Amino acid sequence: MAKKNKPFRPKARRPRGFEDRPADVIRAEASLVAKAFAVYDSFGFEPLQTPAFEYADALGKFLPDEDRPNVGVFALQDDDEQWLSLRYDLTAPLARFVAEHYDAIPKPYRRYQAGSVFRNEKPGPGRFREFTQCDADTVGAGGAVADAEMIMVAAEIARAAGLRDDQYAVRVNNRKLLDGILEASGVPNTDAGATQRLQVLRAIDKLDRLGEDGVEALLGEGREDESGDYTQGARLTAHGIKAVLGFTTASADRETTIATLSGLVGGSDRGKQGVDELAEIDRLLTATGFGPERVSFDTSVVRGLGYYTGPVFELELLAEITDKKGRPVRVGSIGGGGRYDDLVSRFRGQPVPATGFSFGVSRFVSALERMDAMAVAAQPPVLITVFDRGLLPHYFKLAAELRAADIRAEVFTGSGNVTKQLKYADRRGVKLAVLIGSDEAENGQVTIKDLFLGAEMAKAIETNEEWKSTRPAQQTVARDHAVAAIREMMAEP
Amino acid sequence: MAKKNKPFRPKARRPRGFEDRPADVIRAEASLVAKAFAVYDSFGFEPLQTPAFEYADALGKFLPDEDRPNVGVFALQDDDEQWLSLRYDLTAPLARFVAEHYDAIPKPYRRYQAGSVFRNEKPGPGRFREFTQCDADTVGAGGAVADAEMIMVAAEIARAAGLRDDQYAVRVNNRKLLDGILEASGVPNTDAGATQRLQVLRAIDKLDRLGEDGVEALLGEGREDESGDYTQGARLTAHGIKAVLGFTTASADRETTIATLSGLVGGSDRGKQGVDELAEIDRLLTATGFGPERVSFDTSVVRGLGYYTGPVFELELLAEITDKKGRPVRVGSIGGGGRYDDLVSRFRGQPVPATGFSFGVSRFVSALERMDAMAVAAQPPVLITVFDRGLLPHYFKLAAELRAADIRAEVFTGSGNVTKQLKYADRRGVKLAVLIGSDEAENGQVTIKDLFLGAEMAKAIETNEEWKSTRPAQQTVARDHAVAAIREMMAEP
Repeated sequence: MAKKNKPFRPKARRPRGFEDRPADVIRAEASLVAKAFAVYDSFGFEPLQTPAFEYADALGKFLPDEDRPNVGVFALQDDDEQWLSLRYDLTAPLARFVAEHYDAIPKPYRRYQAGSVFRNEKPGPGRFREFTQCDADTVGAGGAVADAEMIMVAAEIARAAGLRDDQYAVRVNNRKLLDGILEASGVPNTDAGATQRLQVLRAIDKLDRLGEDGVEALLGEGREDESGDYTQGARLTAHGIKAVLGFTTASADRETTIATLSGLVGGSDRGKQGVDELAEIDRLLTATGFGPERVSFDTSVVRGLGYYTGPVFELELLAEITDKKGRPVRVGSIGGGGRYDDLVSRFRGQPVPATGFSFGVSRFVSALERMDAMAVAAQPPVLITVFDRGLLPHYFKLAAELRAADIRAEVFTGSGNVTKQLKYADRRGVKLAVLIGSDEAENGQVTIKDLFLGAEMAKAIETNEEWKSTRPAQQTVARDHAVAAIREMMAEP
Repeated sequence: MAKKNKPFRPKARRPRGFEDRPADVIRAEASLVAKAFAVYDSFGFEPLQTPAFEYADALGKFLPDEDRPNVGVFALQDDDEQWLSLRYDLTAPLARFVAEHYDAIPKPYRRYQAGSVFRNEKPGPGRFREFTQCDADTVGAGGAVADAEMIMVAAEIARAAGLRDDQYAVRVNNRKLLDGILEASGVPNTDAGATQRLQVLRAIDKLDRLGEDGVEALLGEGREDESGDYTQGARLTAHGIKAVLGFTTASADRETTIATLSGLVGGSDRGKQGVDELAEIDRLLTATGFGPERVSFDTSVVRGLGYYTGPVFELELLAEITDKKGRPVRVGSIGGGGRYDDLVSRFRGQPVPATGFSFGVSRFVSALERMDAMAVAAQPPVLITVFDRGLLPHYFKLAAELRAADIRAEVFTGSGNVTKQLKYADRRGVKLAVLIGSDEAENGQVTIKDLFLGAEMAKAIETNEEWKSTRPAQQTVARDHAVAAIREMMAEP
């Protein structure tokens, strides 16, 4: 094979909108996912893993069009001409799985899954084109019992993640309530009213930002914002606008809210169903000890996706947290879910009720990190420095003994003298370094340096402070006691 | 929005060559990966996660051509016209990461990672287009010390997976040996000899299948197989052929092999370097207690990838295992690795030595499964049947108590009577079902059914056998003792 004179040298760069995740973040994310899985397991859910790819028509939501197959999803054409898309969530693939194996699986089918999902969107700060979701879903259970269980699962995961009960809340609403109120206000509860319902949902979602007046305008004729952009309103009747605004501000304690809503939905069957479901959820939560401090009813909860059909909920973090510059940050919703009765039905042509919970793993972990509630990072290994290459077998033997004693240990495998090796230890955050020179080897000894203590000592000397530690930064001990001495020194702060 | 009369109903089907992994397999794979991670951690490696996508030119190996961008890899064009590829292994992205952050990371850089890799190939039985690899690599360490460590890691993972030391072997070779032998036989150790070296590697790889005669032909002029296909040979000299064949059959115990190889490589510097590296590896393995039953030297090990430049090794499972029909199955290599000094250098234009270990998670787990060495599956949950919907709060309360006692518990959330619910329990593999009717609720009691025992009893009645169990298949106990009774009944076989 001929070789060019100048070999092609590619530029090492990560694709736009994707991230390399560092060790501490990975450990924290893995720990959170393990805790969520333990909760899912305890409720009797079983794991499932579907592939990263689905046929584009099975994913449904963003069917790629001929000219721009990549809008919203990452899509490519297989060699048999079919369009494949990378999943953009874990719910659409679950719907495909259940529909494909409907007769073979026990129903209700209850599974959990964590995995990468992909969004082919413009990347932004903190907005990545690949991220990890962690979901549980129940397919084939139509009652509010299954929804109540999902709400419990969400609250239990928050607790398992290490949050106090005053640091989070699950806020619950029901799409059927608004459907009912709108129906009573002349918006039919059929596909014909779909656009108006969506406009109303979007308006309510802006309550925090625009206040009641702004939302009122969006529920009526429309609204011009400061930049001059005009948003078409939902054109509800005055009565309808009043009912919707009354609804979104109806939240009090769970029992009172149910009573208020019962009045608001009027004669709508769908609205009544929504009230009954909330009452059932309240009954089960109360019996199981999920009090109002953990789960509240909140009629302003919208939950973005159009496909929800019944109870919806969000897991919100409440703690006041600050960013790196000390400015307050609203964490808000880090996950949520609800009932989606039409997603599997799409394939089957017959009703298959479903409900689920989903959270973004990175979002949850970065919130925990800012709340100082993140799992502790792993302790770095003990570094056995290579003083004398002829003694490498001794070094490896000690490393093996440390590992057998459940202490992470690493023999320096790179090149460079001990000074360079100690710099490496510093960059790795290593606390203890072991030195065995030929003297030590002959005398059956090892020297253990506490690099943290050493650094403090050096700082004290530099600033002429008195060195107060009673512990030495370095010890030489008998080889036979090396593992015990290292364990002891590791435990010291 | 207008609605068509007949809604589009997609067919629920999984894309060709991709799989949905079931619960038991997922649990076993997660358990194996956790064990491997614990070994990597103990050696001081740190986790890294790179994205699924890389720029095609950074992946390098399979550069998509203009007309067929999808050969070997899944590739698509980003909206800025750049080609993105899904990673086909975890090594090429690591090389990109190290090159991109070279000055910021401690060196040697030692990371581990597990994740999906993608191959755009014709799927076949057991050959999927997405599968999980689990790797550890050391970048920036040129000596055999780092290779020795990788070999130890491989052997420790086999042991951590639950294998006895006679059920696996790490077989080690060194590419430099063959390079040296070929150099001594007139094949230059430069790019000019690359094609011949590859032909020789491919020939050696067929030793098992073709025997010495077949390989001899492939090392010389060439060989016609039974179907009439002719394979061009490597055209070595008679002396070269003899040397290579002598080399591939040189393996004995580690010490003897080193002595034999020392003679075979003659005056080649590269060959001598290979022998010295094996001697260093032997010395470290021996000192650390990795005896010949765990790690052997085997000159017939080829290890497919062209990019290896020094020590290479395979982790092979040795146990005689059988398939579902009882026929013997050769498991062979389930992972391996070696030194690849050119992969990061590609980006940097300066040498960056590297060595690593990789295994296929599914391949390893399915081998463990067939060897009956797979981790035990999770115990299915206790099913609390819904006898009376009015008692749902009682059911949920008992479920919460069981979970708090670390017993998986599930309230039936679907629809259907108790008979249907017990059928569901049967499909889920549930052992214990709880029944609380209004009588039990009033009397403060619960009834616990052992479904396994019940099934045996039913079988005995059917076959008129005498029913020998001294245990009842059903017990009614006080509500206060329900959790304790369930725990006791769970522990019974």
